[in-house]
Amino acid sequence: VTLSAGLIPFIPFDRAADVPYYQQIYEGFRSAIVSQRLRPRERLPSTRALARDLEISRLPVLVAFEQLMHEGYLVGRVGSGTYVSDHIPEEIALPVSWGGSVARASEPEPPSAADTVNLGVGPARGVFRIGMPALDRFPYQVFGRLVRRHADASCVDCLGLGDPAGYLPLRVAVAEYLRTARAVECDASQVLIVSGSQMALHVAALALTEPGCTVCMEDPGYPLARAALTAIGAGVTPINVDADGIDVSAIAELGARAKVAVVTPSHQFPLGMSMSASRRRDLLDWAASNQSWILEDDYDSEFRYSSRPLASLQGMDAARRVIYMGTFSKVLFPALRLGYIVVPHALVQRFVNAREAVDLFPPILNQLVVTDFLQEGHFARHLRRMKTLYRARRDALVDAVQVFAGDVLTVASVEAGLQLVAYLADDVDDREVVRLAARHQLMPLSLSRCYAGEAPHRGLLLGFGGSDEAALAAGVRELGDLIRSMQ
Amino acid sequence: VTLSAGLIPFIPFDRAADVPYYQQIYEGFRSAIVSQRLRPRERLPSTRALARDLEISRLPVLVAFEQLMHEGYLVGRVGSGTYVSDHIPEEIALPVSWGGSVARASEPEPPSAADTVNLGVGPARGVFRIGMPALDRFPYQVFGRLVRRHADASCVDCLGLGDPAGYLPLRVAVAEYLRTARAVECDASQVLIVSGSQMALHVAALALTEPGCTVCMEDPGYPLARAALTAIGAGVTPINVDADGIDVSAIAELGARAKVAVVTPSHQFPLGMSMSASRRRDLLDWAASNQSWILEDDYDSEFRYSSRPLASLQGMDAARRVIYMGTFSKVLFPALRLGYIVVPHALVQRFVNAREAVDLFPPILNQLVVTDFLQEGHFARHLRRMKTLYRARRDALVDAVQVFAGDVLTVASVEAGLQLVAYLADDVDDREVVRLAARHQLMPLSLSRCYAGEAPHRGLLLGFGGSDEAALAAGVRELGDLIRSMQ
Repeated sequence: VTLSAGLIPFIPFDRAADVPYYQQIYEGFRSAIVSQRLRPRERLPSTRALARDLEISRLPVLVAFEQLMHEGYLVGRVGSGTYVSDHIPEEIALPVSWGGSVARASEPEPPSAADTVNLGVGPARGVFRIGMPALDRFPYQVFGRLVRRHADASCVDCLGLGDPAGYLPLRVAVAEYLRTARAVECDASQVLIVSGSQMALHVAALALTEPGCTVCMEDPGYPLARAALTAIGAGVTPINVDADGIDVSAIAELGARAKVAVVTPSHQFPLGMSMSASRRRDLLDWAASNQSWILEDDYDSEFRYSSRPLASLQGMDAARRVIYMGTFSKVLFPALRLGYIVVPHALVQRFVNAREAVDLFPPILNQLVVTDFLQEGHFARHLRRMKTLYRARRDALVDAVQVFAGDVLTVASVEAGLQLVAYLADDVDDREVVRLAARHQLMPLSLSRCYAGEAPHRGLLLGFGGSDEAALAAGVRELGDLIRSMQ
Repeated sequence: VTLSAGLIPFIPFDRAADVPYYQQIYEGFRSAIVSQRLRPRERLPSTRALARDLEISRLPVLVAFEQLMHEGYLVGRVGSGTYVSDHIPEEIALPVSWGGSVARASEPEPPSAADTVNLGVGPARGVFRIGMPALDRFPYQVFGRLVRRHADASCVDCLGLGDPAGYLPLRVAVAEYLRTARAVECDASQVLIVSGSQMALHVAALALTEPGCTVCMEDPGYPLARAALTAIGAGVTPINVDADGIDVSAIAELGARAKVAVVTPSHQFPLGMSMSASRRRDLLDWAASNQSWILEDDYDSEFRYSSRPLASLQGMDAARRVIYMGTFSKVLFPALRLGYIVVPHALVQRFVNAREAVDLFPPILNQLVVTDFLQEGHFARHLRRMKTLYRARRDALVDAVQVFAGDVLTVASVEAGLQLVAYLADDVDDREVVRLAARHQLMPLSLSRCYAGEAPHRGLLLGFGGSDEAALAAGVRELGDLIRSMQ
């Protein structure tokens, strides 16, 4: 059966509507298929014919068809022939996320590596996703005004080749912020703008490692940091973390081979504590005497809820062996893709060369906007507001765990950042919990995934930045039920 | 001598002016120093005091001082004490490029590695810079309107985590464009959005190389491609290029070790010819029988001035061994930082993993804007206009060389792209020409730099995209004089 233009009524299409064309087409066909107005194996009109009938360009139709094929509603290939699928995917209540990632509604079950989903691709929404800020509280109006200010290329030269180290006024503003807020010792010439922590780690690995050397990483640690390092073939040695932080004596035992140590001293990922003062001294002494480098990943310590703010490790280091890195992904939003590296003067050229080899220089528009956002005080104001908001969300999450899941989850103390660890009994498989939770749009990360080898404890990393109090409480309740059902 | 608030009259400062604060401060001090109203060794007021006196935040002052120090007008360190330099830099007529890179007016002579400047950092303006599009003809108004459309976050989900492969509607639009305009065989699932050719090469190197293998590169070739590959420790073998393109028999002699060949079949960089049909077949046969990969870098063949358009190598390849890459840097503008890779289905996951390890996913705003720019027909219109413009600029350059420098430069034929080769006599040092030319804001690239070893010919790569006919003619005249003066 080939459908002709008679199909069009199936799709409520309105040129004047606020909904993008592709989304209208997608939703029209999807609902036609789900409601069986379109039957399995029915052939669809060509995208060209459909575009002609709707009197629009072919692209929105292609986008919609692509998405429907991706989700399993349609089969075939754009351009040859497209049919309604034999196996209509189970109706899962996943909204399509047009921006960002594609909701994989076609999978009857989240993929078996569902755990990965929580760091990279996956529906942007989802309770407990780590590192996710409160997107709904971001000051779009202010930010949008700054975007509009730069929309008409006030600076033609800006559109040409940029400095590989980044837009100078932004580097000045970042240096000023880090000196004041994080006690980082630096001037603008030491600041490199990158796209975020991932590129920062990758560039640092390129600049600092050489064949035969090894990079010491906290164990447990941030899984994607390992990916950034091993991608270029760097050797990685997991080093145990205790209550004071990384075990410096274990690093020292590696001798000259240990050229770099990657640490999260302000807020250990994933366990949450900060590195003790004496451990910091030990680590700095090791780096100075071994002529090694410390990579300080300060990924979310802007948000510190009790006690005085912790100064950066970089600021304590007289020997200039610390490379400091941070990101705007959590204090502004992830899709901005802006972060920074602060390097000792002696390393600047090496880092600039590595950065240039990976990705000549950063895009200009976001840099212009964020420079203004910092210079005009919006950044400081946003940070203050978010700190209050996240403290309330953290408290709500801690309370909810005690009320709804105190029998199956034990929350560790959390003084900073956007996530906390909730321990499970040792006989509960945390990866299995994550797999089941994903079906309910709950997106925690398993503690097991943060260990290089066998994890000594089971637990869940629960992000609390991206969901409000009610969603966190409802999520904990569901999570509690789910864990109990496994026992 | 410490200057007090009495200094302020030196700086014509106007809050209401259209000129940014930092630029006003920079220009005020610079002109005070150049005119000797401020003398060497005079101490400047602190940035804090100056900011207070001007009743503005400290940041614009810091930016201005940073720039003045960078250029050698001031010495000292922001925050401690700043003095007028003992050695005021020679007055060169370089405008300060606030966006992008810093004009290095402080250097009495361009740095000895001046040749490098033409690819990466350096003043954005400058005649003959390769790969530079006509920024002054870019349709800002249209583009700006699209930027404004997306300025207020119409899509909150977009601000969260994105797909590492890029925003799906953009991938669909790119696939559609490449199928139509470049005869690339692909669907959107094969398209990865990256920040440009540099990241494309780097990601490809991560995805395709393994220890012990070698990457074959055209010799002469694109110098920064080598940087992208060697950054991760990949072995690189330069392979001779003749009138038909890369020497496939020389690649075949390397046996199984040769896992990848990087080529520019549509418009060889730097020599400018296209790969012959028989050489294309040889190369595809080699890849198929050797189970190797071909990286087709199609960096600027959108602009083809005579004969019919050349189809991509990728579209001829039945064995699915070609990875195709392109960039928006030349068809839109460099600081956009958007490009794409098209990979065979079998390699998609490997490339996505590599891309994610380097830089999780691309920033959203530019992707939203460029999607609309493509979908709404602005892209095709801009390409058509630019093709006419660049053809006229090419003709003007060829004419100017014949009129003003026919005795010292011989232009090779050029049918595509944004630059051409002008050969020098074999006893003229092309690197020296480039060094001298930079003093006059002429920014050619030496042919010598494109060879892995000793160059058999001397010449200059002259970009003609970024300058109008008059500037090209004036530049050629100066270049001719300069070359004659060396003899």
